[in-house]
Amino acid sequence: MNQRINPLVWNDGVLRLVDQRYLPHTINYIDSKNLEDAHMAIKDMVVRGAPLIGFSALYGMALWLKGQTSLTSDSITQARKYLESARPTAVNLAYEASRAQKLIEASLSEGMKVADIYDRLVNFANQEMIKLGNDNLEMAKTAAKHLAELYGDRPLRLMTLCNTGFLACGPMGTALGVISHLNQLKRVEKVFAFETRPYLQGSRLTAFELCQENVPHQIVVEGAMSYLMRTQKIDAIFIGADRIVANGDTANKVGSSSLAIVASHYKVPFFVVAPVSSFDTSLESGDQIEVEMRDPKEILCLKEQRIAPNESDAFNPSFDITSAAHIEGIICENGLISPVTKSKLLSVVNL
Amino acid sequence: MNQRINPLVWNDGVLRLVDQRYLPHTINYIDSKNLEDAHMAIKDMVVRGAPLIGFSALYGMALWLKGQTSLTSDSITQARKYLESARPTAVNLAYEASRAQKLIEASLSEGMKVADIYDRLVNFANQEMIKLGNDNLEMAKTAAKHLAELYGDRPLRLMTLCNTGFLACGPMGTALGVISHLNQLKRVEKVFAFETRPYLQGSRLTAFELCQENVPHQIVVEGAMSYLMRTQKIDAIFIGADRIVANGDTANKVGSSSLAIVASHYKVPFFVVAPVSSFDTSLESGDQIEVEMRDPKEILCLKEQRIAPNESDAFNPSFDITSAAHIEGIICENGLISPVTKSKLLSVVNL
Repeated sequence: MNQRINPLVWNDGVLRLVDQRYLPHTINYIDSKNLEDAHMAIKDMVVRGAPLIGFSALYGMALWLKGQTSLTSDSITQARKYLESARPTAVNLAYEASRAQKLIEASLSEGMKVADIYDRLVNFANQEMIKLGNDNLEMAKTAAKHLAELYGDRPLRLMTLCNTGFLACGPMGTALGVISHLNQLKRVEKVFAFETRPYLQGSRLTAFELCQENVPHQIVVEGAMSYLMRTQKIDAIFIGADRIVANGDTANKVGSSSLAIVASHYKVPFFVVAPVSSFDTSLESGDQIEVEMRDPKEILCLKEQRIAPNESDAFNPSFDITSAAHIEGIICENGLISPVTKSKLLSVVNL
Repeated sequence: MNQRINPLVWNDGVLRLVDQRYLPHTINYIDSKNLEDAHMAIKDMVVRGAPLIGFSALYGMALWLKGQTSLTSDSITQARKYLESARPTAVNLAYEASRAQKLIEASLSEGMKVADIYDRLVNFANQEMIKLGNDNLEMAKTAAKHLAELYGDRPLRLMTLCNTGFLACGPMGTALGVISHLNQLKRVEKVFAFETRPYLQGSRLTAFELCQENVPHQIVVEGAMSYLMRTQKIDAIFIGADRIVANGDTANKVGSSSLAIVASHYKVPFFVVAPVSSFDTSLESGDQIEVEMRDPKEILCLKEQRIAPNESDAFNPSFDITSAAHIEGIICENGLISPVTKSKLLSVVNL
């Protein structure tokens, strides 16, 4: 734990990111020195995970400020929009880029100089990182309490999809933060981590984190979800979220909705763990969420090597929409939303 | 179509198999000249697909006969059991190896010489290949008729998992045979083929066959099943089977059961297509089927390259059990079993 890598470090005007495309075997760092670098790092998935993308947006806007001599409302908007275009579905990106814009504009209207605004934004980003760590710990405690009500304090058999640990979040993690916390309390018997095709975040990143924290685990393919729930006595499933709308419908890594439907069939409780910044209550239902389509080559090729015939195409939605009806509870830093209804969600999120 | 490869050729006492591990980019042939060769080809998945494994068992027993000077009941049983041990879940392997044993023993009791028994067994295997082609065409016609009742003759949007075409079956194919047949009737708008982790039979083999037959298709990851059914207007799903028991529960490639549960949620009709030889009515329910566990490295590595951390393990069930309750219909050469009940199943299978 003490030696665990830090996926995002801000140091003297440079945003240093672990290049998560090459984990777990190679630990490369990529330095972003300007807005374009940060845009590329987000777009090319050097950095991934909703919260870490959010922090990269804050620091990315700081990198932009560093290169400016004077600021206009138009130029700020243009920079913000450019950054947002790197990954259209990731609500944290838009959320944090907008917060950066507001901070810059407010500072500007107070008559602050660019260099001072830059300092203020960097300080804000640093404080947000600390706050997220505290918030994630709150979520983990909420989950642990709820699971104790369901199962007492016996060790649990859990499942998780994609990567939601410190590699995704920086300080701690959401769904995997819950699992880390439970593991520290000696309440994890075993975790089944889905490999998470096509990008294999589960095999590469989640398994890496589970190794670092000594959590007993096995990697499984997404197709095995039904077999696992039928035969392996699964107690609960935890996933993260890229966006949660007013009725509780949740956009997350493709596979999440399939998993939730199968979990519902086997009556395995399915939990979403996400900070308030992942909620977008301006949308009423999941049908309104734009789902990002990614390059078919992520499916057709493995490590640059073509697997499928040259003539074949692939269809690669990066996310899917899990219906609130299949979610037992949503956990944010303000507490547990269960049952998942719009009124309950709004009352917790707006606490 | 005329140039399509032939995955199994028996020629002058040699069983020539296309090495399906290297498709679609490399077409290598592997020759089996004795029982041990055939055992290895089955075990190492040079040859795969329930029917083609069955034919390999018949010809494999012929290869064994070729090396014998005298036969005893014990030696025949030993050869049969050795062959069966190559893949314990594949019912066609046991079924055809047992049929070979019966043919050999019956011939022996008629006083036939080894060389003549060998000729008889080879001739039997050749006839079975022809019969399977005819049977598969029957299945495809049954499916086409049933779909016409559901949807008229408009082009359909279909999904399939794993590989069940001529590469799996030799002459034609089961689930993919249905799709080929519908395509020839110009009743396929599009096929979504699951890549089928961990072995990627969908990307490598199904896509190869769909290319050879000019069927419009896209490859998708298993996780996307819910997203696809929610957004892509899927008309029907066709899969094959490794084993179907008396109540209609079906063992097939891992992912099938997940797919059937999600299909049931979205009310997409889910069909199993398999020859009578894949039915095992000695078992009452799917819980009695032994599921083969395969090497964790199939998940942990891609093309010999380690993906997951060295300390991580994987859990790799090769099959899962789809409950009859989630199957709209089972199609065999004797007709359609729908609704899937034990009495209906037995009446069709025993026609």
